[in-house]
Amino acid sequence: MNVIEALERRRSTRHFEPDGLLLTRESIEELIAEACLAPSEFNLQPWRFIVVRDRERKEVLRECLHRQERVRDASALVIVCGDLKGYDRAGEVVDDWIDQGIVPAGAGQDMVEGIKTFYKKSDLARAGLALRNPGFVAMALMLLATERGIASSPITGFDENAIKKVFSIPDRFVPGVIVALGLPSLRTGQPPRGKRLGPEITVFHEDMNGFKS
Amino acid sequence: MNVIEALERRRSTRHFEPDGLLLTRESIEELIAEACLAPSEFNLQPWRFIVVRDRERKEVLRECLHRQERVRDASALVIVCGDLKGYDRAGEVVDDWIDQGIVPAGAGQDMVEGIKTFYKKSDLARAGLALRNPGFVAMALMLLATERGIASSPITGFDENAIKKVFSIPDRFVPGVIVALGLPSLRTGQPPRGKRLGPEITVFHEDMNGFKS
Repeated sequence: MNVIEALERRRSTRHFEPDGLLLTRESIEELIAEACLAPSEFNLQPWRFIVVRDRERKEVLRECLHRQERVRDASALVIVCGDLKGYDRAGEVVDDWIDQGIVPAGAGQDMVEGIKTFYKKSDLARAGLALRNPGFVAMALMLLATERGIASSPITGFDENAIKKVFSIPDRFVPGVIVALGLPSLRTGQPPRGKRLGPEITVFHEDMNGFKS
Repeated sequence: MNVIEALERRRSTRHFEPDGLLLTRESIEELIAEACLAPSEFNLQPWRFIVVRDRERKEVLRECLHRQERVRDASALVIVCGDLKGYDRAGEVVDDWIDQGIVPAGAGQDMVEGIKTFYKKSDLARAGLALRNPGFVAMALMLLATERGIASSPITGFDENAIKKVFSIPDRFVPGVIVALGLPSLRTGQPPRGKRLGPEITVFHEDMNGFKS
């Protein structure tokens, strides 16, 4: 399936057929490993994934998500967590670059410090680290799922603190996005795709002068 | 090109051939319009795109990005901006849902207020709105580019305030991610892909107990 076909076929599925697909632990891990080919800033990979397949755990998650039916009916849900302290891995990443000859060994320490300082001094940079990169990897995950005939839905309207508590998510992580996976409901049709804004509204050239709110 | 092939071929290109591709205004707008098939929370589409193709404007952008060569050499750069006030469109979106019969007309007003309140009361929700959704659409953009033989690179280590100033980005937006597009350098080889963490490190099942920092 071409990328453009996958984008066109992917829909944010509102209704899943209850436990309609058997998604094994291994098949989901494989899907996630492939999605991790997505880029991340400085290759920090500031993401962790909690796979929820157990019926009782889905009910627990559902309580954090306004009791949405799709949380109960999805075959599996993947909580993509973003790491606010992902810059801690800067040393490892720079060592790889030195091994590959991209960075001279003598410049390594300064580079590690530079990366850490960049994140430590900016709230926006840390928020980006923990939210933008889960966005990359979740999008890759949804397109890969589409290619395999698995329907998906991104879920974001959650109670962060409730999820952190019941899924034992350490403080350094935030739940970035939850991806529900499964078979679309066999009874309920899928409504038309939500309207998209056209480039005449969303695209600017060379600067954003002319923006009207 | 399959999704998995596109993910495998996509590399964060470090060196572009100076102005190696002619990317017209129209072709980039088409690419962006297709990438906007990506989902966004509540279909708010909290994203705007600034396309930078002009040589002088690239130099201006380069000054905000530690004078990286790839900013000068890329054929075009797309600044994907996230809208911290994207929830302002909740009324429009809910009207679409009412038209489609997804939401009963009588429930519309409460739903609009619910969406707005959700974002207004949580800094994390607003940051997510402005950073996670640009992540989705930027990932789609990079995979579509790959499918068309266009190399790309996501750039995130920027001086937010400098970019906002020189590109006249209104306060309600943050630069979420910049995607450079072009032809890979004909002289400089591409180093091996950065190592990825395996699922034994990144994936947890049912909860995150057992995480070791």
